[in-house]
Formats: sequence, structure tokens, C-alpha cells
Amino acid sequence: MDRTSARPAPPPVPAYARAAQQFGKPLSGWRLTLYTIIFEADTRAGRAFDLAVIGAILASVLVAILDSTHAISDRWGGWLYGAEWFFTLLFTAEYVARLLCVRRPGRYALSFFGVIDLLSILPTYIAVLVPGAHVLIDVRVLRLLRVFRILRLTAYVAEFSALGAALRASYRKIAVFLSFVLMLILVFGSVMYVIEGPDNGFTSIPVAMYWAVTTVTTVGFGDITPKTELGRLISSVMMLLGWGVLAVPTGIVTAEMTAQRRGWPGAVTTRTCQFCLTEGHSPEANFCRHCGAKLPDWHHDTVAGGEG
Amino acid sequence: MDRTSARPAPPPVPAYARAAQQFGKPLSGWRLTLYTIIFEADTRAGRAFDLAVIGAILASVLVAILDSTHAISDRWGGWLYGAEWFFTLLFTAEYVARLLCVRRPGRYALSFFGVIDLLSILPTYIAVLVPGAHVLIDVRVLRLLRVFRILRLTAYVAEFSALGAALRASYRKIAVFLSFVLMLILVFGSVMYVIEGPDNGFTSIPVAMYWAVTTVTTVGFGDITPKTELGRLISSVMMLLGWGVLAVPTGIVTAEMTAQRRGWPGAVTTRTCQFCLTEGHSPEANFCRHCGAKLPDWHHDTVAGGEG
Amino acid sequence: MDRTSARPAPPPVPAYARAAQQFGKPLSGWRLTLYTIIFEADTRAGRAFDLAVIGAILASVLVAILDSTHAISDRWGGWLYGAEWFFTLLFTAEYVARLLCVRRPGRYALSFFGVIDLLSILPTYIAVLVPGAHVLIDVRVLRLLRVFRILRLTAYVAEFSALGAALRASYRKIAVFLSFVLMLILVFGSVMYVIEGPDNGFTSIPVAMYWAVTTVTTVGFGDITPKTELGRLISSVMMLLGWGVLAVPTGIVTAEMTAQRRGWPGAVTTRTCQFCLTEGHSPEANFCRHCGAKLPDWHHDTVAGGEG
Amino acid sequence: MDRTSARPAPPPVPAYARAAQQFGKPLSGWRLTLYTIIFEADTRAGRAFDLAVIGAILASVLVAILDSTHAISDRWGGWLYGAEWFFTLLFTAEYVARLLCVRRPGRYALSFFGVIDLLSILPTYIAVLVPGAHVLIDVRVLRLLRVFRILRLTAYVAEFSALGAALRASYRKIAVFLSFVLMLILVFGSVMYVIEGPDNGFTSIPVAMYWAVTTVTTVGFGDITPKTELGRLISSVMMLLGWGVLAVPTGIVTAEMTAQRRGWPGAVTTRTCQFCLTEGHSPEANFCRHCGAKLPDWHHDTVAGGEG
Repeated sequence: MDRTSARPAPPPVPAYARAAQQFGKPLSGWRLTLYTIIFEADTRAGRAFDLAVIGAILASVLVAILDSTHAISDRWGGWLYGAEWFFTLLFTAEYVARLLCVRRPGRYALSFFGVIDLLSILPTYIAVLVPGAHVLIDVRVLRLLRVFRILRLTAYVAEFSALGAALRASYRKIAVFLSFVLMLILVFGSVMYVIEGPDNGFTSIPVAMYWAVTTVTTVGFGDITPKTELGRLISSVMMLLGWGVLAVPTGIVTAEMTAQRRGWPGAVTTRTCQFCLTEGHSPEANFCRHCGAKLPDWHHDTVAGGEG
Repeated sequence: MDRTSARPAPPPVPAYARAAQQFGKPLSGWRLTLYTIIFEADTRAGRAFDLAVIGAILASVLVAILDSTHAISDRWGGWLYGAEWFFTLLFTAEYVARLLCVRRPGRYALSFFGVIDLLSILPTYIAVLVPGAHVLIDVRVLRLLRVFRILRLTAYVAEFSALGAALRASYRKIAVFLSFVLMLILVFGSVMYVIEGPDNGFTSIPVAMYWAVTTVTTVGFGDITPKTELGRLISSVMMLLGWGVLAVPTGIVTAEMTAQRRGWPGAVTTRTCQFCLTEGHSPEANFCRHCGAKLPDWHHDTVAGGEG
Repeated sequence: MDRTSARPAPPPVPAYARAAQQFGKPLSGWRLTLYTIIFEADTRAGRAFDLAVIGAILASVLVAILDSTHAISDRWGGWLYGAEWFFTLLFTAEYVARLLCVRRPGRYALSFFGVIDLLSILPTYIAVLVPGAHVLIDVRVLRLLRVFRILRLTAYVAEFSALGAALRASYRKIAVFLSFVLMLILVFGSVMYVIEGPDNGFTSIPVAMYWAVTTVTTVGFGDITPKTELGRLISSVMMLLGWGVLAVPTGIVTAEMTAQRRGWPGAVTTRTCQFCLTEGHSPEANFCRHCGAKLPDWHHDTVAGGEG
Repeated sequence: MDRTSARPAPPPVPAYARAAQQFGKPLSGWRLTLYTIIFEADTRAGRAFDLAVIGAILASVLVAILDSTHAISDRWGGWLYGAEWFFTLLFTAEYVARLLCVRRPGRYALSFFGVIDLLSILPTYIAVLVPGAHVLIDVRVLRLLRVFRILRLTAYVAEFSALGAALRASYRKIAVFLSFVLMLILVFGSVMYVIEGPDNGFTSIPVAMYWAVTTVTTVGFGDITPKTELGRLISSVMMLLGWGVLAVPTGIVTAEMTAQRRGWPGAVTTRTCQFCLTEGHSPEANFCRHCGAKLPDWHHDTVAGGEG
């Protein structure tokens, strides 16, 4: 668990002061107010704004989903079209406000979330100008990604980063594993293409690889299936292999999580009480849990090194 | 593991006395006897009653299952109809008895199990009064949920609560994970809806999301499958992703269970220092690791007992 | 890992002496010789016999498999029929020999392996006498189970029992989990039967339960699939649930295996060296790994109690 | 984790010296230069050569994949044919160069990678000579396996061997598990063949076993599905069994990886006491736990480095 983020926060630095540290000169007047509301989650107004944006995003995604369902769009098409424009204008206003109140609008516009913000309003405008581009309108669902920006500021961050840390810590093992799986899929896919051939649905190596992925991952759509004896034998081997191989990423992630879970607060360190020689005090302990004596200070980075 | 339930029980308070503590004035006479039989599992009669109810529930569910199978209901329809009424009257009698012997019938009637009790008898009566409501009769299977009430009182409780504790302890990680998966399904579903379109079975975003769920969870019904090259490529990525992502909940639950199984020293107990309120002292600690104050004694054997 | 079975064996007691301990009076003459060959794996002849039996079992199963493949049985039917009779007579001879050399033939005939032995020779005889019973002949594949008897005597036993111990140790958790899954399947199956109905393939509750099993376990045959919106929504919930629930048995077994794996030889015990106070000596250690001092004896059952 | 590869390398022995140690007499002149470039990855030229070979392999595999897609091969067939010959000649040149510069060409030609090297150039030549052998050309995808030879020399080796070590450490458990699963598949397959029969798609025991594999591994293609009540009941049991059994390999691998990840104190190292030959001393041990003799020093930082 990411204890660092959960630690008692340092004396709160006001939002403008932080902005000042970042850009040299503080924002002021309405731009500062706007900035605080839009980009900060500490104030009452900021939190209300965030909740309103999340609500608008979810509502607009719901509109897009309903719009794609013919039974509904045939009947309520007008209302949905209106709601769509309402949200598009709302997000446009928000986009403009964001551009206005940041000190470097260009940098924001080119950032990941800046691009997502633009992508979530553009399709509606384009669909009006270019008739054939109506299909693009479903790109609006990408608005959902904007929720992540706001979630970054909330309490769920600690959990997200805990999961992320577990994955990052084992990314090399995962990369090796993935490259092995991809090679397996390519080799098995080609072999099955040779054995089964276009007559049994394996029309090309890419199609055979798609089939190999459905098989190794145990999805098994069944739209393409082996028909020959040899093909079925090899498929059986692939399934058993995929089944066993599934144990590997689980093992990697679990081992990492178990290590993290152990990490705090019950971590078995080598800290030893000088008086009663009890070992294994947790990193944040100040006193010996056995005799109550004061423990020497613990160097936080030491653990990080030992755990890494 | 649920330490509370495994702790040496306090000197046994008779059922009526407990009821008295709860409601101020004790039940008496036949109502007390009925209450003890129906709601308590400590006495001989109470246990016999519980077993009889479980038997009746399972038998009535079996009747409902057989009734839905045409080959059987065509032939034995009369007997099944009779058995159905027998169980309905039995459960009605039980429901009335429960209402009679509790001190606050209204509170019971509105409780979770009160509603389930009502739902498991109503359909049979409604099916007689309203001809078209015959389909409702299968709601009777919900009677099965009533088994849980009785199981709550048995030895399996410890295991149930152990599993529950493991899930509860990691519910935030699971919530983060689930929201991530749902977002993945929504985004991938929409993308596939745009790519494949209604011609290939992806008739709306909800349908595409249903397909995305079957794919990411590796179920793979195959009633809807991608036909285009790009769609198959994206499906392959989804399958591999879903396969890898499956490692995450397993990792979360396993890490939690391993920690519980070990019990010590990584166990997060609920021991709290009375002075500095630091939580999570390990079972064998004598002093608060934060302020060095003496901790109250911890019953170590309780843990060992709870482990078995 | 089961160290007990891997421990240096006690001074070897001859087969006949062991038989004597069991039955009071020793076998003698040719019956003793036969008993030693058939039931013991310690002697040269006994091991050769076991290997021959395993070979014959595998060969006869292969014959049964080939016999079921029409392309092969049409052409080589005569040879396969001959081979089948060869193996049947062989196993009959073995069965008779077993009956002859044990002291209590009745007890053997009624034991699990005695019944399997009989079942693996009967079908061939019955198929001759009763013409329509030819289908029974595939019961011969149960011969495969006889391999387990011999494997019981080999080195793989330790691994088998290690896996078995892990499962046994958590059988209550698994029972709770299974009863929960079965209840889930019954409730979801009935609900889907009501929602989808016979028109969409859910012809009865048992069929709906079969579908629920294919869905929750992520098998997803796709022979029956939900067609209505509500049915698909509930299916999606089931799939996600089944996916998450899969983490539970994995967590149970893994936690158990991790505990076993840790158990020996690197188990963290509380054994402490009296001279240098190094803790955590493994159970079988005689000397302190840090200072080389003699350690006090370790009571084996203490660990078992603490681990259990 | 592979400690050997992570250990501080011995003072670098030049490639030719190593070759000399192996074969008695050193290579010299252009053969030595060629050998260093082709077989070594330590020099600048060697690394460049390896990268070029990996690039050529991936490009030629891409050509084979594109060639199998009719929409592409119909249009760009000529270019792809040319590219195919370009890569074939390139790999032929490489193969000849390898034969020339090793001291024992025969041994290389018969080694695993020697055969793969030959297999990856032969099909193109054969397809010219024997018209009907065009299908063989897809054997070229096996070129991909050649990437492994080069990867063996890179930094990913540590991760590969870590995964490999985890699998090797539990190979007996996995073997027992696999033999159990195969027996399950054979028995269940035969039973389903008897129950469902050829009319429901179970045309022979091998086909029924193929179906059993798709079911137990939760792949569930759905090309063959049970139709009878009894068959569906047994299938349901198989699915639940397969689902639960999946927990076993995951448990095995995870327990192994957790032990490796922790490294200490449960780590089974290869440290062996010179006096009593007890193996598996923990990394920080100074004395043999069995006989108390002094152990040679263990480079603790090596382990830490190997953990990263």
C-alpha cells in the first residue's frame, strides 16, 4: 500500500502558491479563481466542480449509449440530439475555460488530457460539417477517460498506485512473458494455418493467429475451429499450455502483491531492539513492541532498496 | 479470520435473557418457546427445526426444478402441484409463526429475510388469483436464499466470514479494479461498435459491451464475433489484456489470504493503543510501537484456534 | 512437501513379515511368491511386474481409443478385436492371481481397486453374451484408474500427497465456496429461465443451470446464449462475478501451498540461538547458522501445531 | 532467480581463448573474426550483427504473414516473392558462414539451432524444385525460433531463467498435476463418448477427448456440445472441476515465485556444506545448520542485485 500518499500531509500550501512555485509568477484575479476551481480539488467549489464534471461525463456517455440503441434513438432521437449538443457546449465551455486560466495554454492543449478534452467535443461539430463523419460521433465515449483526471485527485489514487506499483515492479517479467506468448501464438498460428488450411476457416496466418489468441487465452469463440485430427490434437496441446501458462502472470502479480502486502505495516525488517533483542520491528515503529524501549531511527530508503 | 467469533464465548446468556436485553421486556409463555425454537439454534428443538426447514427448502426447490422440466411436469404435474401447495402452506405457517413470536413484527417483515420469506410464498397464491402470473412462480427458487439465514448459525460461519474478511480487507482494491474493468469494457465496446457495426452483429453499444464482457472475462460465447481484420486485432488485444488482468483480483485475494493464513507477523489486527490510537499492532506485541505505551494483553491462542 | 515419506526409511521389513503382522499367519510357498510379485514393488520381480501391468493397461486403453475411431476400426477391426481379447485374458489371469494369493479374497474383491479390476474385464465377456451391450465395452477405459494403484507405490506419491494435503487443509473453505457457487448457479439459472424462457433455448431450469455453469466458469460453449437485453445484462454480471470468484479457490490453494512451501526447510520458527540470539532457525537445524553453536532440540509436533 | 548469471563476472576471457579452452587449439585469422562476430555478443560488431539478424528474422516472418493474406499477396505477390528470396539468400549466407567458422561443423549442423537454421532456408528451395511442396513454405515461420538464440545472450536472460527456475523447481508437482489432468480428460472423454454418442458429435474417443480438453480448460469452442441431460450434468461437473483444478498450477507457480521473490529466509540456495553435504543453507548463514561447520562466504549483494 502506498503509505507515502496516506501520510499526514505537510502544512497545506495554498493552490496559488504552488502554481507560483511552478511558473514563477502567480496567477491572479478571476484566472486564479477559475484555476483553483477547475484544477484544484481542495476547495469546496473545486470539489463541487469535479463532481459536476464527472456527472456530466457519465450522463453524456449514457446519451451516446442510448443513441446507439435503435429502439431508443428512433423514439427519443430528438431529445438525445439535444442532450448531446448540451453536453458538447458544456465541455466546450470547460475546454475554453481551461485554456484561459492556465499559464501555458499550448502545453495544456498538447498534453494527454488536453487532447482527450478536444477529442470529446470535436466529433459533434465535425458530424455537422461533414455528413459522412457521423460514425465518428462514437469517439465521444472517450470522454470517459476524462474521469481519470479527476480520480487522480481522490482517495482512490493510493489503491491505483498500489496496483500500478505491483505491475511496474514486475514489468520485465511480464514483458518476457508477453513476448513468449506472442511467439507461441505466431508459431502455433502458422502451424495451424498449414495443417487446417483455408477450407477449415484458417484463411491466412493473421486469421490463424487470431484463432490462436482465442484458444490460448481460453476465450474460445468457436467461430473458427479445427476440423482435422492433427489440428485438434495441436489445439488440445495449446489449450493445456495456455491454461498452465495463465499461472505465470498470476504468479508474478501475486508474488509482487504478497511482498507489498507484507511490506507495511508488518514488514519483517532486521531492526533489532538493543535491550531485549526482539527482531522484526515494522519500519514506522518508534518503540520496541516487546519491551517498550526507544528504537533507533529507521532509514526509509534502506527498505526501499531491500524491497526493490 | 474472524477473531470475534472464534474468541472464547462469554458465559452463555440464555436466549430469553438476550432477547430481553434487546427489547427491554422478556418474551414469555408460548411466544418465548416458539421464539427459542424458530430463532435459536442452541436447543435440541431449535436445531431440529432448522434442519427440517433446510430439508423443506431444498425439497421445494427440487419441486420447482422438476416442474420446469416438461418431460417430468407433463407426467407428474399433479403430484408436483400438490407438493408445491404443501410447501407453500408450510412456509406460510412458518412465516405467521415468525410474525407472532417476534416482539416487533413490522421490523421483521421489512428485514431482508422477512422480505425473502414473503417472496417465497406469495407467487403460489398470486398464480392462482392472476392467471397470467404463472411465470412468477419461479421466484420460488429464491427460497434457497433462506438457507443462508440458518447457515449463519452454524459452524460454517467461521469459513464464510474468513472469506468475507479477505474480500472486505481488499474491497477498495477490488472497487478500483472493477471500475477499471468497466471503463475498459465501455471503451472497447464502443470502439468495436464503430469498427464492426450492426452488419457484423454489433447492433448497439450495449450489445457491443455485452460482447466485450464475454471477451475480457474469457467466456467467449461466440454468438457475436468480430469479422473485420481490425476488429479481430483489437479483440486479440482485449483477450490478452483480459487474461493478464485476471491475475489482478487473484493477486489481491491471494495476498490477503496468505497474510491471514500466516496470521503473524504481517497480520493487521484491530489492537489499538489507548494513548496514541495507533492501530494494527502485531499479535505478540507488548508495547505500542509508536508511543511505547503498554498494550493490553492479546489472547494468542485465540488466533491459533481461529486458524484451524 | 511431505518430508515424512522422504525420510530415510526404517530398516526394511521383508514383505512376508509385513503381511504376517497384518494377518497373524504368514503366507508361504507359491502364494507368498505371487503375493510379493503382485502386491509389492520392492523386489526386482515386483517392479518388473508393475511396469508390465502399466504397459498392458496403457496399450489396452490405446486399443479401446483406436477401436472407437471408425476410420481405424473399419480397417484394423480384426486385429483390435484380437488385441482386446488378449488384454482381457491377461487381466483376467491377473485378477484370478490376485484373488488366489491374498488371504481374504472377499475383502479384496469388494475393495475399490477390486471392483475396478472386475469392471475392466467384465465388459468384453458381457459384449459376447449380450449382443446389445456392446456400448458397455468403453467402460474398459476405467482400466486407466488401475494405474493409480501402482503409482501409489512410486516416488510420485510424495507430490500427490503434497497436493492432496494442500486441498485437504482447505477443504472446509472449498466446501463453503462450492456451496456458494452452486447456490449462485441455481439462483441465476432460475432467473435466466424466467427472463429468457424456452424460446431462447432456456427450456427448463436444469438447462438454464447448465448454461449458468458454462457462463460462471467462463467456459462459454455458446450453444445456448441470452437474446434479450435484460438476459445479456444479467449474463454480464454473472461473467464478471464468475471471473472474480475464480480468484477465491486460487487464493485458498495458493495460500495453503505458500504456507507448505515455507514450512520446510526454510521455515521461520521462533528457535533462537542461546549464544548469539539469532532467530528463525529451520526445524531440522542442529547448529546455529550464525555462530555455529549447538541448538536445543526441536519438538516436531510444535511446528505442526503452530502451522495447522 | 539465476544467481549464476547475476554473479560478478570473472575477469573477461577473450572469445578466442574461450574457444581455445573448448577445442584445444584456437581459431585464427578470418575464421576467428567471423566467429567473434557471429557467435559473440560482447563486441560492437557482434552486437550489430545480432540486431541485424533479429531485424531480418522479424522482417522475413512479416513477409510470410503478408504472403498468406490473399488480399495482399494477390497485389504485392511479386515484391513478396522477391523479399522472400532476398531473406532466404541472406540466411543461406549466414548458415554457410556459421558452418565455416565453427571448428566442428557437423556438431553445429546437428545441434537444435543448426537444424532450425537449415529448416528456415530449405522450404524456399524445395518449393522451387518440387511444385506441390509450396505449402511447406510456411515452415519459414520457424525462423522466429532463431530469435531465442540471440535472446539467450541478452539482459532478458535473467528474467527468462527466473521464470524457468520457478517452473523447474516445481516440475514434479506439475508433472503429477498434468498426468492427473490427462487421466481426467481420458476418463471423462470416454464416458461422454458412451453417453452422447456419434449422433451428438462425439464421433470417437479422440474427438470426445478433444471436447473434454476444451471443456476442462474452460476454452469452450462450442463446435461440439452435449445434448443429453446426463451429458450436460457431467459437463457441468467437469467445468466446475476444471475451474477449481486451475487453482492448482497457479498455486504451485505462485508459491514458488513468492519464495523466490522473498529470497530470504525461505530461499533454497545451492550452498552446500563441504563436510556433511547438507544443501539449501539460507543466504545469511555462516555455519552449517546440520554439522555446525563453517560455510564459505556468500555474496549477499549478488542476491539483492539478482532480485531487482
